[in-house]
Amino acid sequence: MSGLFVTFEGVEGAGKSSVLSYIYEQLQHQGYDVIHTREPGGIEISEKIREVILNKQHTAMDGRTEALLYAAARRQHLVEKVLPALEKGTIVLCDRFIDSSLAYQGYARGLGIDEVYQINEFAIEQCMPNVTVLFELDPEIGLKRISDNKGREQNRLDLEKLSFHEKVAEAYQILKGKFPNRIQAIDAQQPQEDVQQACLKLIQSYLS
Amino acid sequence: MSGLFVTFEGVEGAGKSSVLSYIYEQLQHQGYDVIHTREPGGIEISEKIREVILNKQHTAMDGRTEALLYAAARRQHLVEKVLPALEKGTIVLCDRFIDSSLAYQGYARGLGIDEVYQINEFAIEQCMPNVTVLFELDPEIGLKRISDNKGREQNRLDLEKLSFHEKVAEAYQILKGKFPNRIQAIDAQQPQEDVQQACLKLIQSYLS
Repeated sequence: MSGLFVTFEGVEGAGKSSVLSYIYEQLQHQGYDVIHTREPGGIEISEKIREVILNKQHTAMDGRTEALLYAAARRQHLVEKVLPALEKGTIVLCDRFIDSSLAYQGYARGLGIDEVYQINEFAIEQCMPNVTVLFELDPEIGLKRISDNKGREQNRLDLEKLSFHEKVAEAYQILKGKFPNRIQAIDAQQPQEDVQQACLKLIQSYLS
Repeated sequence: MSGLFVTFEGVEGAGKSSVLSYIYEQLQHQGYDVIHTREPGGIEISEKIREVILNKQHTAMDGRTEALLYAAARRQHLVEKVLPALEKGTIVLCDRFIDSSLAYQGYARGLGIDEVYQINEFAIEQCMPNVTVLFELDPEIGLKRISDNKGREQNRLDLEKLSFHEKVAEAYQILKGKFPNRIQAIDAQQPQEDVQQACLKLIQSYLS
């Protein structure tokens, strides 16, 4: 693979999405071939899988069924969108990837990080991100940012209790310890401009 | 678990389904609490997953995506139907289960038996069948039986080339070697009545 695969991770309200848009524009402006995406990423099969996961009538959905479905949707998005771009030498910026499954389902939902890692390893084979930017923020601040942002539609995860989001934050710290080279943390409590600059600088260090 | 979990495996045309019906009737007649099922087994979430797998427009479906979807559907069928029955002490007769994924996707499709086993282990946890009846038959004979049976609707797998079905038969031999206690082979080339009797005798040996 000749491209660069960058993923963005962190608790809700950490500002990933808006910083990702900024990075995307900056890299494009600098002449790089770059795309930004997030699962299911408009891939029809992955969208269909997501519909099964999010269908509100599926109240009997088991946690392991859900984890397998997320891994399936991830696989298809990877094969149809991410890998072809990387093979062309494109920089791929992806909002959430394997670490979200490890943090949310593996740790916060209690399925086990190693167990969820195994099925995701099957899904992505060797295609781990070159670098994962971890937006570190006290989850209480993140949740406050979200509830203050009236324009943002709350999703199912935003509505979980604070204790759940604290577990997610804890999980990211465990993952940082497990993958110290790949996962690079950024202090997301700084003013947004500083976060943007720190993130851009980090990603550019992988481009030179 | 106080019930007995019996799965039926073999190449296409080996006669599993009709023997399974016979066993079901016999056990019921003998006063046993017994159900027969096959994935997705009428479980709504599993049916929805199956729709995604079988949708003819999904020509871009990757083999690993498919394997993860089968594992997800299996998990939900297990949790909603098989486990509750076993916990009540019921005998569960299931037409195909984990070994079909190992044989068809792991071996015949080339994803790797161990790899496909891992994601299925995540799906079923410790809930392996107590006994798996393997219907052994030359796949060429099985395919001929199917094409002679005008009443049977051919499915996607029936249409695969003979070489594919030979690989499936080969895989079942490998699995028999891997799980010598669980997988019990029956000669499915005998007259159907003999197959029925051999199968009934085998299952009854687990009930006494």
